[in-house]
Parts: sequence; C-alpha cells; structure tokens
Amino acid sequence: EKVAKMLELKKKLGEEQKPGKFVIKCPKGTRDYGPKEMAVREAVFGTIIESFKRHGAETIDTPVFELRDVLLSKYGEEGGKLVYNLEDQGGELLSMRYDLTVPFARYLAMNKISNIKRYHIAKVYRRDQPVMTRGRYREFYQCDFDIAGEYEKMLPEAECLKIVDEVLNKLDVGNFYIKVNHRVILDAMMSVSGVPKQQFKTVCSSIDKLDKEPWEKVEKELIDEKGLTKEVTQQLRRFVLFREEATDLDDIQTLDKMMEIEALRTNADFKKGTEELKVLFNFLSLYGVTSARFEPSLARGLDYYTGVIYEAVVEPSEEVRKTIAEGAAKENQDSGEASIEGQGLPTGVGSVAAGGRYDELVKGFSGKKDSVPCCGVSFGIERLFAIREAQLKCKDVPMRTVATEVYVASAQKNLLEERMKLCRSLWDSGVRTEMAYKRNPKLLDQIQNCEAKQIPLMLIVGERELQEGVVKLRYIKTREEQDIPLATLVESIREALLKA
Amino acid sequence: EKVAKMLELKKKLGEEQKPGKFVIKCPKGTRDYGPKEMAVREAVFGTIIESFKRHGAETIDTPVFELRDVLLSKYGEEGGKLVYNLEDQGGELLSMRYDLTVPFARYLAMNKISNIKRYHIAKVYRRDQPVMTRGRYREFYQCDFDIAGEYEKMLPEAECLKIVDEVLNKLDVGNFYIKVNHRVILDAMMSVSGVPKQQFKTVCSSIDKLDKEPWEKVEKELIDEKGLTKEVTQQLRRFVLFREEATDLDDIQTLDKMMEIEALRTNADFKKGTEELKVLFNFLSLYGVTSARFEPSLARGLDYYTGVIYEAVVEPSEEVRKTIAEGAAKENQDSGEASIEGQGLPTGVGSVAAGGRYDELVKGFSGKKDSVPCCGVSFGIERLFAIREAQLKCKDVPMRTVATEVYVASAQKNLLEERMKLCRSLWDSGVRTEMAYKRNPKLLDQIQNCEAKQIPLMLIVGERELQEGVVKLRYIKTREEQDIPLATLVESIREALLKA
Repeated sequence: EKVAKMLELKKKLGEEQKPGKFVIKCPKGTRDYGPKEMAVREAVFGTIIESFKRHGAETIDTPVFELRDVLLSKYGEEGGKLVYNLEDQGGELLSMRYDLTVPFARYLAMNKISNIKRYHIAKVYRRDQPVMTRGRYREFYQCDFDIAGEYEKMLPEAECLKIVDEVLNKLDVGNFYIKVNHRVILDAMMSVSGVPKQQFKTVCSSIDKLDKEPWEKVEKELIDEKGLTKEVTQQLRRFVLFREEATDLDDIQTLDKMMEIEALRTNADFKKGTEELKVLFNFLSLYGVTSARFEPSLARGLDYYTGVIYEAVVEPSEEVRKTIAEGAAKENQDSGEASIEGQGLPTGVGSVAAGGRYDELVKGFSGKKDSVPCCGVSFGIERLFAIREAQLKCKDVPMRTVATEVYVASAQKNLLEERMKLCRSLWDSGVRTEMAYKRNPKLLDQIQNCEAKQIPLMLIVGERELQEGVVKLRYIKTREEQDIPLATLVESIREALLKA
Repeated sequence: EKVAKMLELKKKLGEEQKPGKFVIKCPKGTRDYGPKEMAVREAVFGTIIESFKRHGAETIDTPVFELRDVLLSKYGEEGGKLVYNLEDQGGELLSMRYDLTVPFARYLAMNKISNIKRYHIAKVYRRDQPVMTRGRYREFYQCDFDIAGEYEKMLPEAECLKIVDEVLNKLDVGNFYIKVNHRVILDAMMSVSGVPKQQFKTVCSSIDKLDKEPWEKVEKELIDEKGLTKEVTQQLRRFVLFREEATDLDDIQTLDKMMEIEALRTNADFKKGTEELKVLFNFLSLYGVTSARFEPSLARGLDYYTGVIYEAVVEPSEEVRKTIAEGAAKENQDSGEASIEGQGLPTGVGSVAAGGRYDELVKGFSGKKDSVPCCGVSFGIERLFAIREAQLKCKDVPMRTVATEVYVASAQKNLLEERMKLCRSLWDSGVRTEMAYKRNPKLLDQIQNCEAKQIPLMLIVGERELQEGVVKLRYIKTREEQDIPLATLVESIREALLKA
C-alpha cells in the first residue's frame, strides 16, 4: 500500500522530463497571434479602450498569478477546479488568475480603495476543455470595466450596459442584444417554485443552458440529475419561460405582469429585484440603450454576484459563422489537436460580454467592516476577434500589419550608404521608414515589397538624381513619380503623405 | 528510509492549503500598477512602440507559458533554474516563459518563417531573488524588437542600436551609452589568454561584473573560484581593460590598436569579430548613433548569442537615483517583504536594454537544415519606468490618469435625468464625459473632482438655464463661465476643448 501511495505521489510530481525529441507547438488551448491577428486584435482593443476612456475610466494592472489562498477563497468549487497552479518550487504557493475580478477585489482591499472606475485588459487562465470553434481557449484576454463605490442605485449598472451597447455597435459584429436579470429575482423564482435553498446554484446552472437547449432537455436534467419533482419544474418553467409566453410585452410590462402572480408579488426578493430593474430600464432609455432585454432565464455561474446580472449575445451572419468554423477546424488540424471537442461544430450564438453587481467580494478580503459595492462588465474578447477576423476574411479586406510610410529603395548598385543616410533623415524627423537589408536589392523586389505591405510612398535613390540633389518619389498606388529636392525632403514627404 | 523519501515527496507536493486567515498581498517579487503607474507605463510603452513602428516592425504575441521541453532545451542551466513551472495537473508539462526570445524562435520554427521584423511587448517570469531598488522583479515586462533573416552583415545590428539610441533619447532618462562587443572577440580573448574552452562561460560571467566591481575583486574570483592562474588573469586583464589603458582612442582606433597585438592578430575569431565591428561602427555613424562604444569586457550571460552583443547603460541623476531608492524601500516595507535583498541599496548604473545576434536558436528547433539568423534588442522596461516615475516625482509633475474632457454637473437638486441626457449626447458624439454617480451631488465636490482629475471642461445644468435652452460651460483652469445653447452643444464643446 505504501508503494502504491508512493507511485501515486511520484505520478503527481511528474517532474521527470521525457528524454528525446519533442513536438514544437503551443500548449493545448493556447495560440500565437501573428501580425495579421494582432492587427485585428489591436483594432478591437482600440475600440473598447476608447469606450472605457470615453466614460472616464482609469486603468490598472495586477500580476498574472496570485497567492493561491487569495484566489481559491473566491472562485468557489467550480472555478477552483479550473485554476492553473504553479509548482511548489519553495516559497509561496501561487496560482494563475481565472478572471480579473478577484484580483481587482484584492487590489481594492489591499489598498483600502473605496471608489474607483477602472478598466483592466489582460490575459486570464482556465484549465477548461478548449473549444476553438467557440473561441474558448485556456489562455484568453478579458477586458474589464468596473465601478466601485457607494452610489445612486442602478447608475453604475446603466453605464456598464451603455458601454456594452457602444462597443458592440462600434465593432459592427452583427445583431446583438443584452440579457438582463437580477440575482434576487432568480432566488425568488427558485424559492417560490419550491427548489430547496442548497439546490439554487446547481439548478441555476441547468437553467442557464436554456439559450442552447430546449426546455424539455433542461427539465429532464433537473428531474433526473438534480432530483427536482415535476411539480417544481412546472412552476420554474412558468417563470423562466415567461417571456416566451408573452412576447408582446416590453421589459417593464413583463415585470409588471410577473408581479401579478400572487406568489411572486408577496416575495420580498422579487419585489426588490423588480423595482431595481424598472429603475434600470428607465435609465437605459435615457442613455439610448435599446439592446437590453429582461430575461428571467439568465443565470450567471459565478458565486459572487449579488444584484443585476447581464450577458450580451451576438448573432453573427451565417457567412461569418461558417468562416469561423472552417478557420477553427483548420487550426485544430494544424496544431494536431485532434482530441479537441467541438471540432467542426457550427459556431452559434455566443456570449461576448457579461457582468453584474458584486457587493460582497471586497468585504470578503478586507474583513467585515468595509464593504465596497462593485459593478462591472467583462468583454469576451476572443469571440469578438474571431467574428472580426471572419468578417474581414469574408470581405477580403487586406490587413495592414506595418505602419511604414516610406520605403527607401535604389535603382542601381552600390547605393547602400545613400539609402542609409536617407533613412536616418526620415527617422530623425519621425517619418516611419524602411529599406531593404540587402546591399544591392532589385528594384522590382522593392516595389513588390511596398505593394505587399501597403506602404504608400517609395523614395528611389539613383546616381543621376543624387548629382542633381534630388530623389525620385513614387506613389505606390498610382505609380506616379516625381523628383523632389533633397533639401526639402521631409517637408515634401509630409505633403505627399497627405495626398497618398 | 522509505518514510523519509515519502516525506520529502510530500513536501515537494506542498499542495495542502494552510487553514485559517491569509495575508492580502501580491506574490513576492511582483507588484500592482495603480492608475498613476499605468499612466507612466503607457507613456513609456508609447515611445518605444512608436520607435518600433517607425522602423517598420510588425507585432506578434505568444502564450505566457510554453511546453516545458521547449523552454528548458534553450535556456541552459542558468536560465533553467529560474524558470517557473506549472504544477502537473494532468496533460502537458508547462513552464512560464523566461524571456521573449525563445518563444520567438519557437514561433519562427513552428511557422517556417525565414524573415520577419517584429516587436513583442509582454511579461516574462524569473524566480530570481527580487531587488526592487534595482527594478528587478519576478514578473516584468520585456519590449523586444528582432530582425530575422539572411541579410547584409551588420545592417540589422545597426538598426537595433539606432532604435536603442532613439528610445533612450526620446525618453530623456539621463546620460546613457551602449556597450558593444562581439561573441567571437570574447572567445578569442579567452583562448589567447589561455582560458580552457570549457571555462569560457563561467569566466565570462565573472568578467561581466567589471561594471560593478574593481578588477582586483574579479581577478580574485577568477583565481580562487574559477581556478585560473595569475598568468592567465594577467593576460585577460590586458584585453578586457584595454580601453581603460588607452582612453584617447575611438572605437575603430581601439580595435586597430588591439590588432597590433600579435596573438590577437593571428587569431581568426578576433579578426572576424574586429572586421564586423568596424563595419558596424561605420554604419552607426551613417545612422547618427554616437552613444555606442566598443567595450571588450561586455559579456552577456545567455548561451544563445553568436555575434555582436550590446547593452545600454543609463546613469540617472543623483536626485533621481535617491528617489528610486526611497520609493523602493518604502514599497518593500509596505509589502512586508523585509527579507528582500538590497533594501535601501543605492540604485546605481543600470542596464536598460540589451541584445545581440543569435543565429543558431531557430535552427535548434527546426532541425539542421534551415538556419534563421536573428538579431534583436530587449528593453528592460521596469527600470525605465522607475527612472521616469522618479523624474516625475522630482519635478512634481501631476499625472493625468483619466482622459475625460467634460464633466457634467448640476448646481441644484433633482437634475439627475438631465445630467444623464447630456452625458448621452456627448458620449454618442464621441466626447469623453463623466458625471457624479450621486442623485444630488454638491457643486463644490463636483468642481473639486474636476480639478483633481484635471478635467478641462465642466457643464453645469440648472433649471433656469434649461428653461432658456442653454447650459453653463465652465473652464476649470480659468474659472471662466459662459452659457452655450443646447442646440449646438457638441459643436460648442469641440470648440471649447481646443481653447481649454
């Protein structure tokens, strides 16, 4: 028995390196971003960051790993299972962050900050089963915007939803809407339906599948796996599918209509949640947000939400969906990840942003006294990338991956030093300039390079021109050429850039 | 004995969580960036990225961890000891990257890319003894620029050094110079001095200390610890301190003068290295780089360099150095890291950028056939941050941490909805706008908030004004106020922003 235990321990250690050749690949569930992907990524980040700044957010950054105790105390059982641990190499026990919210709460508690509006864009890590076709990776970016502080009810929530609405409109990713629900409304529906309190969480995670699966399948799971009775699921059904039964009502009318149900009306939780949501929807109309929609079946997984919760869902065009699925299938194949689930699966509706109110998270760190109410939203950026990449592929838009404005070329041999001097003048004046790294590059190669990289201008050095104190300027698009005096090189280039 | 082994294994596992309370802090050797630090960081990144783009670089990104085999095959013994391993939780064995160069080489080999000019800005991880006063962290940013491809000799090297020169000038971090040496010149000096081949590396790492320690101390280490004879160290001394003995010679003259030494002249390595450096210094003068300097004692640690190597060194002003040391000492104290070495040490000369040519690194991944010659530079960004932060502190420059242009305020009660409508108009027109999240904020609080955040404009909503179809615009700096018509709100704000 001792030996068996030893072997098990040894297996757990797994420190021995396997000898011999190894495969050159990225770790499972991760990927490289090449220049083209980076160009898309930076454009998407740019749009999101501009929206965060437009709403007055500051930015912070925290380490990629945290003390293990800090993380595990907050992610609960579900999250905890997916956390990457660092090996114990002596010293503190560390784990990699699973989201940016717990590190944010730790930052607030540690620095005793009671109000801040901040964004944080960084990678997070989940040892999940990767599904590339759905943009689900083990390493992925989150773009978080959060408002911490004791404020007028629903104002921070309204601003978070305004930002989601702005970003998804600006990114032009297709039809989208934002499902909105309230933690205490969920609790009320459970309680009124007769779900035992300790079952709320697990029932919620079944309910949450209603956007992908029909009620019958979810109900079967609730009865067979979660042990609910048919009576209870029938009650639940009435609430969570309320909007499907009354499609002509708007959000406030729906809430009012639900209020007519005796059991809900007399439930304090339901009353509180409904009142808050009504304030929220009023604020949203002042902010011009028409994409939000009360959805009683929305149930977000994480433990720490205490108030309004929301999730934005995008429905890309059929063409875009197909392109994503093809690209991801190819990627899986290339990386030899045959085992990855969901290969070739059609990419359907996907959540691209989600969040809510979490008033107790910071308190858990800093002790009972100070509670810092928080509310935020996190963009699931990998899906937005995937949609943008597919859109560009469909439209066949050529991506620029360099910012070069001028390419310094030569038509004859032995002009390396002259090209270098020109580059220097332009660099020193702040003009983005490149040249070939060969001593005697061919003119055709240099022109082709400019065309491939979409560099707008080319300077062609020649001996005749140098003697005359000029250099030839070529507009790559129009192939127009003109001589410009070396004496006013930078000014001429600046003018030409405006025209090119 | 079995039990002892078991205990040891168990200790290695170290998976058991200690129960009870835990301390809220960042992991040892890491730190948070608050809004002020982020503002400095983004400014420094901006300068560096602009320089990379000015030279036509694309950008890529790779995962924060790699297959352990990929990393350990390249970092050698020294680097390998400092690598963070991830716990074996089933599946692949992973480790966190130690630099961005090995992941870059893996990326090239995996994608069969034979030429690219790219930059990569990301965090790397080293389980080193942290010394905050010297800007040495366990998690820190590297900003890498590399040129891969078979090109005209010394052209990529010259451009890398041009970039270092540009960035350090632009950042205005104080006096700096760039030490330049050549891997084969080092080899030649060792060989000619009679250092046994297998000792080259360890002797190099002693030599490398000459920027911090006097020759006598280094010589003692070479004799006592590395086992060299006095004859050998005397020979070495003559070479590595060559410039100290002939301070009136420029770089090319120094190389020529060393060539006069019979033993070096007849050494093929030395001849090759010297010829290359002479080409390089000629190119550097064409590029207007005057900060580079041949330094025969420069010996970079990592195994993979094959050609020219360089390291930029900054000498911040006394005032800046003191400020850094004080700040770091305070930080150590705050974080309870009493054990950190070097606490309160004066921050001296520091390396802020380094790199060189590594022609064999990619070949090691992709097999014997394809060699991808590479050359690059990496900025040690944490030290640059520390210097910039200290400079700003010394000059008492207030940092802006938000980009807000307009603050929407109210002078009376019950104007929340009016403020929200104004915010909406401005947001929808792309104006960066904020307002208080309270229902009835005090005017004085709102004005103070604008001043603290350096928001240039304030709109003050009042009942009288609303009735007249106007809103009051206040310039925060001059306290000037004027009424502007709501009908032309956005246009008026745009004009005011140009003036503010």
